[in-house]
Amino acid sequence: MQRILIDMDDVLADASQGILDIYNSHYGTAYVKSDFENTNLWDGEVKPKYENVRFRLFESGFFRNLKPKEGGIETVKKLQEKYEIFIVSAAMEFPNSLKEKHEWLAEHMPFIHWKNMVLCGDKSVVAGDYMIDDHEKNLVSFKGTSLLFDAIHNQSTEGFERYKTWNQIAEKLL
Amino acid sequence: MQRILIDMDDVLADASQGILDIYNSHYGTAYVKSDFENTNLWDGEVKPKYENVRFRLFESGFFRNLKPKEGGIETVKKLQEKYEIFIVSAAMEFPNSLKEKHEWLAEHMPFIHWKNMVLCGDKSVVAGDYMIDDHEKNLVSFKGTSLLFDAIHNQSTEGFERYKTWNQIAEKLL
Repeated sequence: MQRILIDMDDVLADASQGILDIYNSHYGTAYVKSDFENTNLWDGEVKPKYENVRFRLFESGFFRNLKPKEGGIETVKKLQEKYEIFIVSAAMEFPNSLKEKHEWLAEHMPFIHWKNMVLCGDKSVVAGDYMIDDHEKNLVSFKGTSLLFDAIHNQSTEGFERYKTWNQIAEKLL
Repeated sequence: MQRILIDMDDVLADASQGILDIYNSHYGTAYVKSDFENTNLWDGEVKPKYENVRFRLFESGFFRNLKPKEGGIETVKKLQEKYEIFIVSAAMEFPNSLKEKHEWLAEHMPFIHWKNMVLCGDKSVVAGDYMIDDHEKNLVSFKGTSLLFDAIHNQSTEGFERYKTWNQIAEKLL
């Protein structure tokens, strides 16, 4: 059975929206994701202001309360019939997120056994046949097939097949 | 640079002693590790009584307060000069342990960057050149060189090079 490694933030869980929510509530702005199309989310004028609120990603509750990305949970459930699925999240920078990510998966994806969860730092240590991720740094050292999940912050990333939605992932792998 | 994957419980941290402490304090016994030489720690008459206290492994503080195994920290620090080191612990069964293991490493092994920590369930997902572990189930699927770290509970495990101390590991790898 082939193995797929699937990222959490901005692949299964809507971390960009969570960050936007923090930013908007702090500065009284009303940004939506489409305001950042074809840009890097936190470049330009919002970058220094974002750095000022980034500490809130380290606080309790941020990762626990992220919304699932559309179609992700259902698609992974179907993929599980054909593939060995591991959820692999680079969580070590955020110690509070470790238990929260475990809880998030238990709530939203109870069909993922704890044996199939990986919380790590550098993803070069995990191996599989496919990796679905939004960060070039994770995909570039992967020896299998890399699938770039489209995100506001990776619009300039090139060299990987880009998938805009979970439906496109399903078409590719199912 | 070759990569070594190093387990935590009963390799770097003395989990067997932690369990013995729980058992002894609950039942008023005074077992020491050498009482279990050439046996499986929790077989025989103590097994059903151990099952009664096992829930305490899930409580806060158990993993955080384990003592380091003799020679482990110093040896890993030396290994780090020659190898890429990842600490890989099968922690997902114990959600409370996730942050505690992060904290344990930060306290006892501050030279291990968070990028080099992995908390997982099934270790078949990690890849490297060497794996140091006390459990056959982790070593058996590993594609590199497997080093069995001697523990009370693995006395009947065969088919791997067995290392009784961190000094022996140092002799092998340094």
